[in-house]
Amino acid sequence: MPRIAICAPSRAITQEDAARVTALAADFPALDLHFHPQCFLEQGHFAGSDAARIDALVASAEDPAFDAVWFARGGYGAVRVAEDAIARMGRNAEAKTFLGYSDGGILLGGLYAKRIGRQVHAPMPTDIRRDGGEAAVRRTLGWLAGDVSGLEPSIDHHPAVAFNLMTLAMLCGTPLMPGLAGHVVMVEDVGEYLYAVDRLFFHVTAHLGGIAGLRLGRISQVPENDAPFGHQAEDIARHWCTRHAIPFLGSADIGHDVDNKIVPFGVATPG
Amino acid sequence: MPRIAICAPSRAITQEDAARVTALAADFPALDLHFHPQCFLEQGHFAGSDAARIDALVASAEDPAFDAVWFARGGYGAVRVAEDAIARMGRNAEAKTFLGYSDGGILLGGLYAKRIGRQVHAPMPTDIRRDGGEAAVRRTLGWLAGDVSGLEPSIDHHPAVAFNLMTLAMLCGTPLMPGLAGHVVMVEDVGEYLYAVDRLFFHVTAHLGGIAGLRLGRISQVPENDAPFGHQAEDIARHWCTRHAIPFLGSADIGHDVDNKIVPFGVATPG
Repeated sequence: MPRIAICAPSRAITQEDAARVTALAADFPALDLHFHPQCFLEQGHFAGSDAARIDALVASAEDPAFDAVWFARGGYGAVRVAEDAIARMGRNAEAKTFLGYSDGGILLGGLYAKRIGRQVHAPMPTDIRRDGGEAAVRRTLGWLAGDVSGLEPSIDHHPAVAFNLMTLAMLCGTPLMPGLAGHVVMVEDVGEYLYAVDRLFFHVTAHLGGIAGLRLGRISQVPENDAPFGHQAEDIARHWCTRHAIPFLGSADIGHDVDNKIVPFGVATPG
Repeated sequence: MPRIAICAPSRAITQEDAARVTALAADFPALDLHFHPQCFLEQGHFAGSDAARIDALVASAEDPAFDAVWFARGGYGAVRVAEDAIARMGRNAEAKTFLGYSDGGILLGGLYAKRIGRQVHAPMPTDIRRDGGEAAVRRTLGWLAGDVSGLEPSIDHHPAVAFNLMTLAMLCGTPLMPGLAGHVVMVEDVGEYLYAVDRLFFHVTAHLGGIAGLRLGRISQVPENDAPFGHQAEDIARHWCTRHAIPFLGSADIGHDVDNKIVPFGVATPG
C-alpha cells in the first residue's frame, strides 16, 4: 500500500484544502496520504522558515515508512531549501518517488541531478483550488495507484523532463541543474509577458545544447502589455530552438491548469 | 568633438523625446548627437524588426565618424540582436564607447565579453521621460564631455560592472556572458516581486564565483504580493552572497531612476 508523505517546500496550503484532497483519496483505497504539519505553517511568503521546510522535507524523504514525497504547493521557496535538504538525504530518500511541479521543479531537478529517487512532474494537492481541480489531483493519485492514463501523451522511448520555464531558467548553470543531453525537455509557464518568455527562451536554450528536443506546454495567463509583442509563444520557442540547433518537437500537454499531465523524469517505465 | 550615434536595439523612442534630448545637448557644445532613424521605427514590441535593429546597431558601431554608440532605450529586445550584431562588428567598433543600461546590459555584457570597445552603464535618452529626467540625461552627456562627477561613487581600483539583475541572470552561462572574476558587480532591478528578486539572486550568485564582491543598487517599484515576503532586498542579497562566499560590499548608487550613476565597465580610467 503506497504511503505518501505530503510536505510544502515552498508555500503553505490550508487545512481545508488538505481535507478535500484526503476526501478525494478515499476513492483510491490503495493509497495512504499523510500531510506533514509543516504544510500549514506560514512565515512571510513561505510555509514556515527555511529550517522548518528543510526539516519537513528531509524527514519525509528519509522516513522509511513512506514510498513517495508529494509537494503540497509551489509558489516560490524551493531554491532556499533545495541544496541543504538534498545534502541531508540518504539511502531512504533513494527509494522514494518525488512529485510536484512549478517551483517544485527546483527540487525535482536537483534530485534528478543527484540521482536521488524518482522524480515526477505531476499535479499537486493545491490544484484542488482550481475550477475542476479534482481531476488534476485525481490524476496524480491515480498514477500513484498504478493508473498510467494520466501520462503526458507524447512520451516515448526518450528520457523526458518537464519544467516551468522560469524554474528551469533559474536552475541553469547551478549545482541543482541536471544534465539533460538526449532528453526531451517540456516547458510551460504562467503569468509571464511574452517578452519575458522570449528572454527566458534565450537563456534556457543557450543551456540546452545536446537535448533530444524541446516541447512547448501551455503559456497561460499572459498579461497584456502596452504593445503587442509581435510573436506568439510557439514562434518564440521555434526561434530560439533554431538558433541553438535544438529540434522543436511540438506541443506538450502540461501547464498551470487542470489538464496538466504527468511526466516521470528519465525514461518512463511501464506502470 | 565627440560624435555620438544613438540607436535603439530594444524599444523605440519618440521624435519628441529625441528633440528634447537634442535641445539639452545644446548645453554641451563639445558633443554632436545623431539619432539614427531606426530609433523611431515600431514593429510590435520593438523598434523595428530584428534585422532593422541589427543593421542600425552595426552601422552605428562601424561608422568611423562616430566616437560613441548610445542606446536610446531599454525595455526588451537586445537579446534578439546581440549575437548577430556583435559578430558583424570590426575594427571601427573597437574604438567606440557603448552606453546604456537595463536591457542594454545584454549588449554591454556581450561587448565586454568580446572586448569590443568600451562599455558604460549610463542613463539613456529615454530617461528624459522621468520626472526630473533631464538630470539623468545630463549626467551621460556630461560624462561624454569629460565630466567625471556622474561616476558611481563607490568605484575604486577594482574593475566594475553594473547590470539590471534580470538582465544579468539571463546573460549567465550564455556566449554573451563576460568573465567577471575580480570584478565588483553592481545590480539593480525594477518592478519585480521580492520572491523574484530572491530567485534571481539564487541564480546569479551561483554564476558569480570569484568576483571581488557584489553591491546592491536600488530595487524599486516592488509590487505588493498577497503575503509580505519576509526578507528585505538587502537581506536577500546578503543571504545569497554568504551562500556562495561572495563579499557583500554594500549599496551601489544605480537604479531605474533619475539618480542612476555612471559605471564604466572594467577599471575606470581618469576622465
